[in-house]
Amino acid sequence: MSNIENKNSHVNPSFSLPTKEQKPVDYYLNGLVSGDRYILSETITLLESRLPKKRELGVEILSKLPVNHQPTIRIGITGTPGVGKSTFIEAFGLFLIDKGHKPAILAIDPSSQKTKGSILGDKTRMESLSSHPEAYIRPSATNNVLGGTAAVTKETIQICESAGYDIIIVETVGVGQSETEVDNITDINILLLQPGAGDDIQGIKRGIMENADIFVINKSDGAMIELARNTKTSYTNAISLFHHDLEGWTCPVLLVSSIAQLGISEVYDATMAYHKVANDNGFFTKQRETQEIKWFEKQSKKMVIDMVLGQKDIQESYIKLLNDIKHQTIQTTEALRTFQEKLSLIINSK
Amino acid sequence: MSNIENKNSHVNPSFSLPTKEQKPVDYYLNGLVSGDRYILSETITLLESRLPKKRELGVEILSKLPVNHQPTIRIGITGTPGVGKSTFIEAFGLFLIDKGHKPAILAIDPSSQKTKGSILGDKTRMESLSSHPEAYIRPSATNNVLGGTAAVTKETIQICESAGYDIIIVETVGVGQSETEVDNITDINILLLQPGAGDDIQGIKRGIMENADIFVINKSDGAMIELARNTKTSYTNAISLFHHDLEGWTCPVLLVSSIAQLGISEVYDATMAYHKVANDNGFFTKQRETQEIKWFEKQSKKMVIDMVLGQKDIQESYIKLLNDIKHQTIQTTEALRTFQEKLSLIINSK
Repeated sequence: MSNIENKNSHVNPSFSLPTKEQKPVDYYLNGLVSGDRYILSETITLLESRLPKKRELGVEILSKLPVNHQPTIRIGITGTPGVGKSTFIEAFGLFLIDKGHKPAILAIDPSSQKTKGSILGDKTRMESLSSHPEAYIRPSATNNVLGGTAAVTKETIQICESAGYDIIIVETVGVGQSETEVDNITDINILLLQPGAGDDIQGIKRGIMENADIFVINKSDGAMIELARNTKTSYTNAISLFHHDLEGWTCPVLLVSSIAQLGISEVYDATMAYHKVANDNGFFTKQRETQEIKWFEKQSKKMVIDMVLGQKDIQESYIKLLNDIKHQTIQTTEALRTFQEKLSLIINSK
Repeated sequence: MSNIENKNSHVNPSFSLPTKEQKPVDYYLNGLVSGDRYILSETITLLESRLPKKRELGVEILSKLPVNHQPTIRIGITGTPGVGKSTFIEAFGLFLIDKGHKPAILAIDPSSQKTKGSILGDKTRMESLSSHPEAYIRPSATNNVLGGTAAVTKETIQICESAGYDIIIVETVGVGQSETEVDNITDINILLLQPGAGDDIQGIKRGIMENADIFVINKSDGAMIELARNTKTSYTNAISLFHHDLEGWTCPVLLVSSIAQLGISEVYDATMAYHKVANDNGFFTKQRETQEIKWFEKQSKKMVIDMVLGQKDIQESYIKLLNDIKHQTIQTTEALRTFQEKLSLIINSK
């Protein structure tokens, strides 16, 4: 063994040169609890790392964090590209600071992947907010992080809350890709629309409505104001046809001009009103509890599937059967039976 | 071994008495292809059986069925209890027969579970249709069938098509329970509503709209006609806000009186119009192909999870961790890490 090691170090001597030393868990824990922004960013970077060792350290920090008893609100902000999410979040975030909150903004907008999640990208998008000492902005986790984008975002929420941020805003395009879905990690969801109705303008899928608690028609200013009012009427009518999970809540449709900073306080009031209704009848706490349970169920099942389908034999059989179904050389029911036989060779033999 | 067998037969001699002999696969195949209704029912009963041996025979028959080249349409009919699904299906089914079709009606309405899926239950609901020689009505598969309710329904569709039925109607309450969902087994979905708008009257979840291709306001007659017209306007406006997967399709909202048999031909025309648009641009075929692929992916993954979580060790660990999360004695991220370790003991050791 020592021979092999010697040989390796001989081939590439720089390999054994000292690298950056790993900081102890306490360094991160103390930094987070004291609200150190640099250490906050370092911790999130660990969780986003593709290196198993770094990711493990991140998970360890997370599991050792003291339980956060400060009340927090997690707000999802969804809207198709071009609807003005960044401008809205900038205005809304500054308003929150005015009201004494400390907002953290997390983006999992795949369209901002172009900037490779560089801080510069989001800083340019939200200039005043990103330079404010009371706000924390974290750009998109890049794809293919070990834990999955949504998982890391969920963990990042916890980390930010431990660091003293009380309103966490998660920005997403909400195109329905499971990887970027935030339904299961936020308390309140705001859907951003723009003046004008119909699929040509909004491009949103019908189902996306189901997850929204507050509708905001952004860019309701100037020449658009009349169109915005009509859009508000259309959505108000549409919403009245469907049932909301929170008893006694009717989703408001609010006109906002992020640029002119009009209607921002109404969005804040609606958010707080929703939070009050949800909190008073126990929905808020219950929902967070359910989210954790569902999260564990979903992620653990994903884990099982990844591990089993990661087995060479099983994977080959799975891919072959999928192909056979595609080319209609096997009935799906028969394919399932074949797959089951394959599985039981591996799993039931234990 | 023979001792044990003798002992058993001694304890209960009737055990070894001759039982009903299993009929050969060809008996079923020939019966199905010749359109024998009795054998059709027998085959479905095999698929619904809780006895593995019978279920296996059913699957074998299914896998040996000749590929059906006759064009068929699979229609999902969804609506909350009380909206008049049975009355509508009775009127619609008779209309289909008039047009030269052979409709088969499958119900997976859990509310009809009260009748334990007895044929009497559904025959009472659709009196004229059930006695018609050109129609076939099959009541709900009871819960806990080996393959799962939706799976068996999917198989039953195939069996009915082989037996010469060209329009398959699948009735469901569409309350969003995955077990009773038909999104992935039908070509066209009709959502039944009644006059009056708002959640108090319809009680449908906002997301249910996404799966509907044709909206029918049933009971549009007598004193309700004015209200029905208003409801139509509301839904027409709501629908115009959202995007349909089928390019060029705008969901129609149709007024129907099933009792007075008014508007039934419009539903038929809309169904055929949808089918034509979907067929012409390849959406129809593509959708069926995708359904098979998705079905295999979903069912095979369910199989993997059932088998792995069926292992005593894993199951105990899973349940314990879920409990710990519920009682907040463990962070979810930490619980997932623990579960992963447990899993790798079983799976990666191979």
